[in-house]
Amino acid sequence: MPASVNDVSDHPFAGHPFAGDPVFDLHVGGKMAIRSAVALAGADELSLAYTPGVARVCEAIAENPELTASYTWVPNTVAIVTDGTAVLGLGDIGPAAAMPVMEGKAVLFKQFGGVDGIPICLATTDVEEIVETVVRMAPSFGGINLEDISAPRCFEIEQRLKDRLDIPVFHDDQHGTAVVALAALQNALKLTGRLVETTRVVIAGAGAAGVAVTRIMLEAGIKDIAVVDRQGVLNSERSDLTQVKLDLARDTADNFGRSGSLAEVMQGADVYIGVSGGTVPEEIVETMADDAIIFGLANPNPEVHPDVAHRHARVVATGRSDFPNQINNVLAFPGIFRGAFDVRASSITEGMKLAAAKALADLVGDDLSEDLIIPSPFDARVGNAVSSAVAEAARRDGVARATTD
Amino acid sequence: MPASVNDVSDHPFAGHPFAGDPVFDLHVGGKMAIRSAVALAGADELSLAYTPGVARVCEAIAENPELTASYTWVPNTVAIVTDGTAVLGLGDIGPAAAMPVMEGKAVLFKQFGGVDGIPICLATTDVEEIVETVVRMAPSFGGINLEDISAPRCFEIEQRLKDRLDIPVFHDDQHGTAVVALAALQNALKLTGRLVETTRVVIAGAGAAGVAVTRIMLEAGIKDIAVVDRQGVLNSERSDLTQVKLDLARDTADNFGRSGSLAEVMQGADVYIGVSGGTVPEEIVETMADDAIIFGLANPNPEVHPDVAHRHARVVATGRSDFPNQINNVLAFPGIFRGAFDVRASSITEGMKLAAAKALADLVGDDLSEDLIIPSPFDARVGNAVSSAVAEAARRDGVARATTD
Repeated sequence: MPASVNDVSDHPFAGHPFAGDPVFDLHVGGKMAIRSAVALAGADELSLAYTPGVARVCEAIAENPELTASYTWVPNTVAIVTDGTAVLGLGDIGPAAAMPVMEGKAVLFKQFGGVDGIPICLATTDVEEIVETVVRMAPSFGGINLEDISAPRCFEIEQRLKDRLDIPVFHDDQHGTAVVALAALQNALKLTGRLVETTRVVIAGAGAAGVAVTRIMLEAGIKDIAVVDRQGVLNSERSDLTQVKLDLARDTADNFGRSGSLAEVMQGADVYIGVSGGTVPEEIVETMADDAIIFGLANPNPEVHPDVAHRHARVVATGRSDFPNQINNVLAFPGIFRGAFDVRASSITEGMKLAAAKALADLVGDDLSEDLIIPSPFDARVGNAVSSAVAEAARRDGVARATTD
Repeated sequence: MPASVNDVSDHPFAGHPFAGDPVFDLHVGGKMAIRSAVALAGADELSLAYTPGVARVCEAIAENPELTASYTWVPNTVAIVTDGTAVLGLGDIGPAAAMPVMEGKAVLFKQFGGVDGIPICLATTDVEEIVETVVRMAPSFGGINLEDISAPRCFEIEQRLKDRLDIPVFHDDQHGTAVVALAALQNALKLTGRLVETTRVVIAGAGAAGVAVTRIMLEAGIKDIAVVDRQGVLNSERSDLTQVKLDLARDTADNFGRSGSLAEVMQGADVYIGVSGGTVPEEIVETMADDAIIFGLANPNPEVHPDVAHRHARVVATGRSDFPNQINNVLAFPGIFRGAFDVRASSITEGMKLAAAKALADLVGDDLSEDLIIPSPFDARVGNAVSSAVAEAARRDGVARATTD
């Protein structure tokens, strides 16, 4: 039986079911806690932080809701919202089992962005109920980070929340991945002497990450993209596509008449980006163009193992920390929210995401090489570089509400 | 214009609208933050706290949800839920303006109970929507503390949440006040040589606090209670009562044939407990029994000012920190949740509340005097005394789920 909370804090490594396993030992009692920013040493301080003093702060905010930004923790908080339907590669494991990931996310938000993240794991998978629940909770938070919600529900949930809320709403599995992948690709293109306009890209996977990666690549000026799902290239001649996939087909393969299987579209392709979780046989990989670029982002098993990829490609990236060029969302989401919060942005625009990607790509600078197309998550410059670029883009896009930065 | 979050943390006392006011200065940037319980110094630790390591913790919880208690922060967290309809004495000021009180509550939960409180201010006042929202969020929390929700909605919301959730649900405005008032009354009766069975009590106010104070007094064995609202004594001859008030009338004044106005029922009463916010004229106060007991709990203006009360009563308590005998909820809620969490209680029973009141009353011990019927909130013994008593009562009542304590 699990020990009680008190036991756990008194004896952190004793009495829990997996004692001795370093992962579980680290998780005992959870990975986060609340910290008071004020000390209450006696009645005087209590009367400032709580009754009767606090009543004046409440009255001031009731009169001018903008003061929430000055006198509460709200503007620095993000709800990390999941329904537990697409947790890591584990799939639909439910809200309780999703919590360790959401706590991990909160730890990353704090460490890399100084943002206070609150895990909210929901006991519903109904789109309408999720939207209503988040809208009702929204006065408590400065932003909403959607996490590990399965496609295509995640697209509708994000769009409806963006429409109804005037705070940043960001589905990290989509846009965090997209921003970092774009940054890495921009550097890979530079390294291999390619132009965005003429580079031919294959994106394998049309789920949350695949859709967002495709969209940001289009925004960044890449034209010739073929998105592939299990049935082959997405184009509007197919009758089995959801609306999201059909829209994607029209903006990608339709424009270049691409169709057929992954094997067919990979012949001569410059770039492969895998966000599918499948495996690409080596005989397909070897048909790509010279100096190919291969991003196999599935975790823990990349669609093309780096050993295989390196036999046929010049630049290789994965989602793993034990190979060079890790495409890790943590490079993006803490700085994006930090930048958005610093200027009290009302939303996260395409311009802010592109600015984040450019800031990440630029950080590599003269160190650019086959094994360094994207900074390390532990590069201390990352947070500030991303947040500054995002804040500036928010001002440019007219969504910044703070007059100072 | 308010400064941004970054400005605030860089220059905590500059640039905000009420700079120089100690209450507002203390509130700049909010009163709380998230703290990481794990340090991420490099890729190795990241791979334990986040991917890929965290996946094993998720899988373990998916297989055995009980492990949530060992490996997440959930069992130590309480959602502090309000709709902003009855905030302090300010009334319906809405969810945004309620936040400073909820943050204050979280600070108190942490300091006095080691409990991680998360403010959730809801943008709805609909009973059904509040219930559904809290039920959907519930996997994220170890308990629910309802706060500053107006009567009679608060009764239905609490009851429905208790019926649907297997974690503690506690409306502090009701039960926190009730527990502390009972503790103080038990000592006041002892001091004045009264027996619970024969003491005659008048409770002014039939809102959240009035109902709960009355209920716990009945549980504690007091029989002769008259509850008074603006129209006079609640009895079932009145045709204007809500169901909650009618139920209360049947358990109180009906049994002793009491009726009429506050003035009438105060004649010869032993105890007056005000939770109404009104004012009792001195000519009514002076009609009470000898050695009367007067609790005027309205804040900041007690129903009977202590200077007036002392002219006609032997024991006087208020809700204020600047007079002796402060009836302050902070004496109860942190220890009640600490005790409930320590044994993973599935609910907070009447027995647990009575045990909390007894523990508080007992702490005064031999120091009992007219000016000391209840401990100070800063008495360091309070938290442990309450939590131990509550945990023991939870075991006795069969709601404890932890086998160790």
